[in-house]
Amino acid sequence: MSKNKNLPIDATEHVASGGLLNRRLFLNTAIATTAALATTRAAYGQEVVGEGQEDWTLYPGSDALEYGERSRFEVERVKKFVPKVTEANEDYYALRTTNANSLTPHQHLTGTITPGGLHFSVTHHGIPDIDPDQHAVVIHGMVKQPIKLDINALENCPTVTREHFIECSGNSGALWSETARNITLDRSHGLVSGSQWTGVLLSTLLDECGVSPGAKWIVAEGADSGSLSRSIPFEKAMKDCMIAIAQNGERLMPNQGYPFRLLNPGYEGNTSIKWLRSIYVTDRPVMSRFETSRYTDRMPDGKSLQFSLEIDVKSMITRPSNAMSLPKHGVYEITGLAWSGRGKVSRVEVSVDGGTTWADAALEGPVHDIMLTRFRIPWMWDGGTAILQSRATDEFGRVQPTRTEMIARRGRNASYHFHAIHSWGVATNGEITHVYA
Amino acid sequence: MSKNKNLPIDATEHVASGGLLNRRLFLNTAIATTAALATTRAAYGQEVVGEGQEDWTLYPGSDALEYGERSRFEVERVKKFVPKVTEANEDYYALRTTNANSLTPHQHLTGTITPGGLHFSVTHHGIPDIDPDQHAVVIHGMVKQPIKLDINALENCPTVTREHFIECSGNSGALWSETARNITLDRSHGLVSGSQWTGVLLSTLLDECGVSPGAKWIVAEGADSGSLSRSIPFEKAMKDCMIAIAQNGERLMPNQGYPFRLLNPGYEGNTSIKWLRSIYVTDRPVMSRFETSRYTDRMPDGKSLQFSLEIDVKSMITRPSNAMSLPKHGVYEITGLAWSGRGKVSRVEVSVDGGTTWADAALEGPVHDIMLTRFRIPWMWDGGTAILQSRATDEFGRVQPTRTEMIARRGRNASYHFHAIHSWGVATNGEITHVYA
Repeated sequence: MSKNKNLPIDATEHVASGGLLNRRLFLNTAIATTAALATTRAAYGQEVVGEGQEDWTLYPGSDALEYGERSRFEVERVKKFVPKVTEANEDYYALRTTNANSLTPHQHLTGTITPGGLHFSVTHHGIPDIDPDQHAVVIHGMVKQPIKLDINALENCPTVTREHFIECSGNSGALWSETARNITLDRSHGLVSGSQWTGVLLSTLLDECGVSPGAKWIVAEGADSGSLSRSIPFEKAMKDCMIAIAQNGERLMPNQGYPFRLLNPGYEGNTSIKWLRSIYVTDRPVMSRFETSRYTDRMPDGKSLQFSLEIDVKSMITRPSNAMSLPKHGVYEITGLAWSGRGKVSRVEVSVDGGTTWADAALEGPVHDIMLTRFRIPWMWDGGTAILQSRATDEFGRVQPTRTEMIARRGRNASYHFHAIHSWGVATNGEITHVYA
Repeated sequence: MSKNKNLPIDATEHVASGGLLNRRLFLNTAIATTAALATTRAAYGQEVVGEGQEDWTLYPGSDALEYGERSRFEVERVKKFVPKVTEANEDYYALRTTNANSLTPHQHLTGTITPGGLHFSVTHHGIPDIDPDQHAVVIHGMVKQPIKLDINALENCPTVTREHFIECSGNSGALWSETARNITLDRSHGLVSGSQWTGVLLSTLLDECGVSPGAKWIVAEGADSGSLSRSIPFEKAMKDCMIAIAQNGERLMPNQGYPFRLLNPGYEGNTSIKWLRSIYVTDRPVMSRFETSRYTDRMPDGKSLQFSLEIDVKSMITRPSNAMSLPKHGVYEITGLAWSGRGKVSRVEVSVDGGTTWADAALEGPVHDIMLTRFRIPWMWDGGTAILQSRATDEFGRVQPTRTEMIARRGRNASYHFHAIHSWGVATNGEITHVYA
């Protein structure tokens, strides 16, 4: 380990017990380099290739692709978890009728934008293969003039670009289990992803149609083989819903709703109807299959909550995690993501002693409404045991609960909207496991 | 065309001649829908599939992929332009020694983030296929303690995530030609792209090494077969340069420098050395091949500018463009991207009469330092001829010049840093061509 002798590590400011350091003190900490070189090289260009390493300059390079692909060294290392219904395993997400679900491997990702190829999908009826020239959305019902738009018509409309996350209400459902299993972050928190979306605001289109008095809900329906549909309050539809025609700059991938989807910011993911083909304006919800037999929250008394649509405040530590071990004592960055379905994340605290003491992490701005926010805090690991946790607060004062608090309130019949504090246990040998704490 | 009769189009506010509308008036304009439906549908779910269209609900869906791919309907429609050295064409970018260049098709993209697969690359010696376990970067020269870091060591360092564009100084070089050719936007402006980058600030690593007094430059060198290297002022290296380990959340693609590259925000792209293997701290520039025989600007008097590193203020209209025709009279959104190598874009003006009158476009925030900024303005096309232009200003008051002004200042020996106003000519039949105006 290299260490700047002029600025010893104990000059840094401890802000909570267990080694959490002041978030402004990133510099002059002891970085765990691959190797401290014994001598300064005398001249430019001399022996920069290390012992036992390849000199890549000896090989000719390849040509460019029309659409870039990942390195062959990444393909097996970073991929989505696709639960299989045929596997006799205990995976929560395998309790499905298709193999069309996929979960984002946040343990290997950075920043706040999820690459298109790694965005999660929950798809109850498989992924349609839609020819955009043979597909349109109809806006109808309680409107003066119904309209039909295909992708070309939508591209000619006024558009907006906004960053938003989508989270399935079933995300982290595995954590309702009685005992903690050492599952990786994709399996516990892989049903949330963040994107830069471009689309046409539904308010633009509904104004164009001329909505009739008395409209209170819209019903959005997809062109998947099960015609998944959800009722959405009209007020929310007019506030910030859009028909998304692009994700991270390019058209959506098939599993994201190609050629276009509804984007319903901050509401549970299944309301952002993919392969959108109908927006029906009405005065009441339709009580469709996916808002009655599924996606309702059962309470301790056996009754169910109706239309528990908004995503709670939540966070997760993405690194370190049980996808790695800590190779040696020293300074590490604890980083992760926080989000709220109502607006901006205002604070993320981190604890390394299982919640006894907390320190504020740095939020990496600009913080967007209803978007993943990256947090970071340096941590000096001295080799002892530790329990790493993050706790998010949003601009409305909502605070992420402990698991105990959440179960006390929601009971044990629940299966959706798990958003309690998540814990990584660190052993003295640097091994990390998922624990309940 | 559907039109809200209660709010006729002439109620909108004209802000420049030729039909430019107030940027806040997006609503209640005449949207060119695919079809206005003759009657309001009587009941939910009835006949939402249009005449002659497929009913996609009749087909079973497919399974999920571990890494998502684009729709088969996008593959040929949207791809990078890869100039071939073997083609006997006049394409500016084909004057290269490899087929490893690729240009971003901005005419088909939205937002500000360029998907990884569509990020441009200029690569003089082909794309190396680097095993990250066999590659490291050495920081050495005028430092107290040289260090060597591989991707794992870099991932354990304190990191930052920032959005930045990269532009090749050769971008738009085709527009130095005497006469305008009707080239698409990828061929004229495809050597700029925007990403969310995550990396370790060079200042963090240089502080860790302990830089010796008298250091004035760094020399960054890549592991491509030509060991491309550039000298960068030390002050700039300490200000905001990073070793980028991720792009849009995932590791870099091979043509972006996998496993890591230097990111030198706002300086010409070739200084953001890919496949980085050496950072050499020194007291003078090394005058390497790519900062002498290439990438210097020849002035009218035959002398060359030394180290013209900073990218100018620039913009382009991405839609409408010559990749489309205007299908009918009506309201269109004029949208595009603006950027500055020095900081934030503060203003973008749009003209539809070849620069006689200008109107302020809306900038879509948050506006980042040294990043593509999306602008938008609605335009009522009445069917006449038009010349669409955009003019960017940055927070330092730098204004994008006209082509005439630029050639008057830079002469005709120049081949880099073309950043003048670009023009789209609209004909009465809706056809669009690239013109000089």
